Amino acid sequence: MHMALVAESPTATSFAEVAADLKASQAHELEAVNEVILDHLSSSVPLIPEVASYLIKAGGKRLRPLMTLASGQLCGAPAEKPRLLAAAVELIHAATLLHDDVVDDSALRRGLKTANIIFGNKESVLVGDFLFARAFQLMVKTGSLRVLDVLSAASCTISEGEVLQLETQAKTATTKDQYIQVVSAKTAALFAAATQSGAIVGDAPEPVEDAFYQYGLNFGIAYQLVDDALDYDSATVAIGKTAGDDFREGKMTLPVILAIADARGTEERAFWERTLGEGVQAEGDFERACDLMARDRVIPRALDAAAAYAEDAASALSVVSPAPLRSQLEDLARRSVVRRS
Amino acid sequence: MHMALVAESPTATSFAEVAADLKASQAHELEAVNEVILDHLSSSVPLIPEVASYLIKAGGKRLRPLMTLASGQLCGAPAEKPRLLAAAVELIHAATLLHDDVVDDSALRRGLKTANIIFGNKESVLVGDFLFARAFQLMVKTGSLRVLDVLSAASCTISEGEVLQLETQAKTATTKDQYIQVVSAKTAALFAAATQSGAIVGDAPEPVEDAFYQYGLNFGIAYQLVDDALDYDSATVAIGKTAGDDFREGKMTLPVILAIADARGTEERAFWERTLGEGVQAEGDFERACDLMARDRVIPRALDAAAAYAEDAASALSVVSPAPLRSQLEDLARRSVVRRS
Repeated sequence: MHMALVAESPTATSFAEVAADLKASQAHELEAVNEVILDHLSSSVPLIPEVASYLIKAGGKRLRPLMTLASGQLCGAPAEKPRLLAAAVELIHAATLLHDDVVDDSALRRGLKTANIIFGNKESVLVGDFLFARAFQLMVKTGSLRVLDVLSAASCTISEGEVLQLETQAKTATTKDQYIQVVSAKTAALFAAATQSGAIVGDAPEPVEDAFYQYGLNFGIAYQLVDDALDYDSATVAIGKTAGDDFREGKMTLPVILAIADARGTEERAFWERTLGEGVQAEGDFERACDLMARDRVIPRALDAAAAYAEDAASALSVVSPAPLRSQLEDLARRSVVRRS
Repeated sequence: MHMALVAESPTATSFAEVAADLKASQAHELEAVNEVILDHLSSSVPLIPEVASYLIKAGGKRLRPLMTLASGQLCGAPAEKPRLLAAAVELIHAATLLHDDVVDDSALRRGLKTANIIFGNKESVLVGDFLFARAFQLMVKTGSLRVLDVLSAASCTISEGEVLQLETQAKTATTKDQYIQVVSAKTAALFAAATQSGAIVGDAPEPVEDAFYQYGLNFGIAYQLVDDALDYDSATVAIGKTAGDDFREGKMTLPVILAIADARGTEERAFWERTLGEGVQAEGDFERACDLMARDRVIPRALDAAAAYAEDAASALSVVSPAPLRSQLEDLARRSVVRRS
């Protein structure tokens, strides 16, 4: 488990740098994907492109479309299909963000006000539905029923993960297995479908398609594990993400699951039960949670767990013919635990 | 415009009777559709089938799946495909109901508490997403990309209609054309896709497919027009629907659009502006709205408008080979203005 050590080294190449390199090498394709997205936001109802483009322009790392483009290219797909799919995957992602922010009552995302705050919860629900439906229209254009099958199944899984997350909220008895189930469904399923569908439109043989599925799935789990660890890292406040959101919402992420397991004595257990189980929080509680986590080295351990998934992601690609793009994907996975945003 | 007179005659065959006859003649197929639906509500997350089956068991008229079954049969489709499609259409409908009730803050539907009241808004948003995704999985099983194209486009249109409805809410200057645009999108698009997709899986020639599209579209408009008229009919209170909901929410439906156009003098215009535009309502306001509508014969005129669409629906089927089922559909359209629920 050396990755957590890498994660703590300020001189290692960061995830952001590897992602930026990949983004730069795909700049032309990403531009084409953006055009497809913008074309498909048009509507006779002006509020729809307004809400949607607010969200989509707010940016984000475009990781999912990048992965679809990369797997499509590595499997020799003609350029058009991975572009359509990359756009579809990004629209599904945008739709889930709109609905997530309503469900979580979120006010900030990447340092900007969320769409539900600016436009309203109702608008966010309905525009999310619109984007979701548009994503399916894009998939139809690939002419591949298998892609539609994979992405509709992934969409089911995402909502199941979101519902399960809602059900485990404030349940301090939530286990690591349940948490991994939530993360696999709500986050990793879309990464897995993104990479797998690129392989499908490249007519990849089954072992290669499966390798891309495994890559996306394990990358997604690692990515969410790191994200959840960063929520207990005060350094993240500086870069726009609001640290402590998960704590305030009583989300049962790996850091709190590990911290609760390590609680010493009645008073500490009562602290977690009050703050997370009952949702009764006072000033200083979040700081105390972080202190207890620091004492028990909870964050490095959560990053170790992430690193194991990241390694599984990278090694899954060994069946894919060597290529610079394959190395970039492997690198992206291995560096996903070296993040500050 | 004789239909409104029929609508007022208590001895005419009612919509409910024609619909019950159709339902009875399709009982075996509907049973198969129910099985498909129940099979596809299964999930590792128990809350999902709980919310979904609450909604689906609450019943409703099953009009959309009936229409898909009917058009499929009239076009000679093998039984399996219309069943899958009918289930998909009903799941899309259920998903939109879950999201609608959140958006409208509704508490009652068909005399029962809504899912958002029993299970929560968040749960309704997420389970709606799940049902929507499941619907697409069912469509994939038909093997028809055209069906997916038609139903994903219809799903886009539905959300556009919902957003437009939200935008016209409390806008007393809303025109009849804008209202028809809302109704065509939020309600009629799904009926149109339901009947059209049955024709598609029956490999119907283009004019027949188009006839079924026109049937569903015009039926859907008529159906919603009648629904909106019933919201200003105190008799509907008795059968579980809450009359006055649209008035309380400031929804710009045809009855209020006609009533505002006929308002006499400053005081009446101020009444509509206060109650609908500003949403400031006091006891007796709804009754006064109904009285003003009665004076200007607003409801019969709204039903006349519905009857014209119903007639267009029925006559669209003239290109379809005569059959008892075709007559039932024509009858269903023509009787859609003879309703009390």
